Amino acid sequence: VSHSNQTPAQRPAPLRIGALVFDGVDQIDLTGPFEVFARLSDSSYRCYGKTTAPVRDVHGLVLHPDADLDAAGELDVLHVPGGRGQEQLMDDAEVLGWITRHAERARCVFSVCTGALLLGAAGLLRGRRATTHWASVPLLPLFGATVVEQRVVVDGRFVFAGGVTAGIDGALRVAATLRGSEEAQRIQLAMQYAPEPPFQAGAPDTAPAAVLGAVRAELAPITRRREQTARRIGACLGTT
Amino acid sequence: VSHSNQTPAQRPAPLRIGALVFDGVDQIDLTGPFEVFARLSDSSYRCYGKTTAPVRDVHGLVLHPDADLDAAGELDVLHVPGGRGQEQLMDDAEVLGWITRHAERARCVFSVCTGALLLGAAGLLRGRRATTHWASVPLLPLFGATVVEQRVVVDGRFVFAGGVTAGIDGALRVAATLRGSEEAQRIQLAMQYAPEPPFQAGAPDTAPAAVLGAVRAELAPITRRREQTARRIGACLGTT
Repeated sequence: VSHSNQTPAQRPAPLRIGALVFDGVDQIDLTGPFEVFARLSDSSYRCYGKTTAPVRDVHGLVLHPDADLDAAGELDVLHVPGGRGQEQLMDDAEVLGWITRHAERARCVFSVCTGALLLGAAGLLRGRRATTHWASVPLLPLFGATVVEQRVVVDGRFVFAGGVTAGIDGALRVAATLRGSEEAQRIQLAMQYAPEPPFQAGAPDTAPAAVLGAVRAELAPITRRREQTARRIGACLGTT
Repeated sequence: VSHSNQTPAQRPAPLRIGALVFDGVDQIDLTGPFEVFARLSDSSYRCYGKTTAPVRDVHGLVLHPDADLDAAGELDVLHVPGGRGQEQLMDDAEVLGWITRHAERARCVFSVCTGALLLGAAGLLRGRRATTHWASVPLLPLFGATVVEQRVVVDGRFVFAGGVTAGIDGALRVAATLRGSEEAQRIQLAMQYAPEPPFQAGAPDTAPAAVLGAVRAELAPITRRREQTARRIGACLGTT
C-alpha cells in the first residue's frame, strides 16, 4: 500500500496508549488488549505503575511498568484493567487523580473487568451506561452508572469490557473506532481470533448451576469487600 | 465442597506446569494459557528461560522467567508458545534438548501457535496430527506431521493450538482433560470467556480477501525464513 499521495494532514496521528498496571491486576485484562493495541500501526503502548518496580498479577505473573504515573504525557487511549488489586486502589487518591486527569483528555477511556470500579471511584461513571465482570455488575449503580447487559458497552468515548477475556473483544472495538474496521480485522486475523470455547460456561446465564454456584462462592469474599468499599465511596460521591 | 471423605490417594496429584519463555515470544501465546492454568487447583505454573534475565515479547512486553532451563524439575504439562522469536530457537540445541527431555515424560505437551514448529525441530511431530498458526500450517509436513484443519488438535498426550488466541481454547481443553470438565467450566466462567469478536475475520476462510492479502504480505518474510529453516532441519531429521 502506497501512501505517497497522502499529505501529512491525511495520515492518522500517532496513537499514545497508556495502561495502569498494579499489584493484583488480572494479567489478561492487560495482556489481552495489549495483543490488539500493540499491533496498531503508528502507535505506542506503555504501562504505568505507581513506581517502576515490577508488580505481580493476581496469579503471580510478573509485569513491568514502563514508567511511573508522573511520566505519562497526554494519552489518546487510557486502558484501565481490573483484578483483585483494584479494590485497594479505589481508595488511592494518587491513582484516582491520575485516572481522572487522563480520562478528561483521552479520545477513549477503556476499562476491562473491575477496572470499571476504578473509573467509578474516580467519579467517572455518573450517568453512564457501563459493564464490568458479571460478579461485580450489581456494584455499578453505587457509582451512578446504568448497567447494560452486553459484553462490551460503548458510551461515547467510554468503552467498558466485561470480565477478563472481554477485554480482547473490547480492544478490537476500540481499534476499529480509532483506525477503521479494516485495520481491526487485519489484527484479528493475525491473532487468529476465531474463538471456539470448549464449553458454554463463559457467562452466568449459560453455565451449569453447579458451576455458577461454585464460582459465586469463590468470588463472594472479594465481591463483599468491593461492595463495602463501593458503598462508602459512592456515599462520598453522592451516587448511592 | 467437602473433601473429608477422600483418602489422599483419591486426590489428584499436584500439577507442575512449565512454559518455555524467550525473546520474541508472542506474549498471549503464554499469557492466554497462563490465565487458565494458573487458576487450576493444586498446581504450579512456572516460566523457564535460557537465563533468568527478562525477555521482551515480539511487541515489547517484558516477561520474567521464574528460573532457567536447568532448574526445571519434572513437568506434568510442557507449554511451548510461539512468536517470531521461535524461528531462531529451531536451531538451538539447548532449547530443543530441553523440550525433548520434558516432552518424554510430561502427561501433556501443549504447543500454541508456532510453538508447534519448535516441537517439529525437536523431532516430536513425526507421524503426529497437528496444527499451528494458519500462515505456518504448510510447514508442518516438513517435520513429518499431518495437518488437521481444526483450531485445537489433540493427538494422544500432545495438544496443538492454532495461532495466538487459540491457546485459550487449547488450555481449557487441557484443563478439562487433567482436572475434569467441571473445573474447566468454573475457570471459563471466572474468566467470563464467552467471546464475541466484533468481526468474522479471525480465520483465512472467513476474513475479507483484502484483509487476508494484507496479513499474508505482512507475514511473508518471517514465514519464508521459517520455511527455509524448517526445510533444512527437516532434511536432517529425514522428514522432508
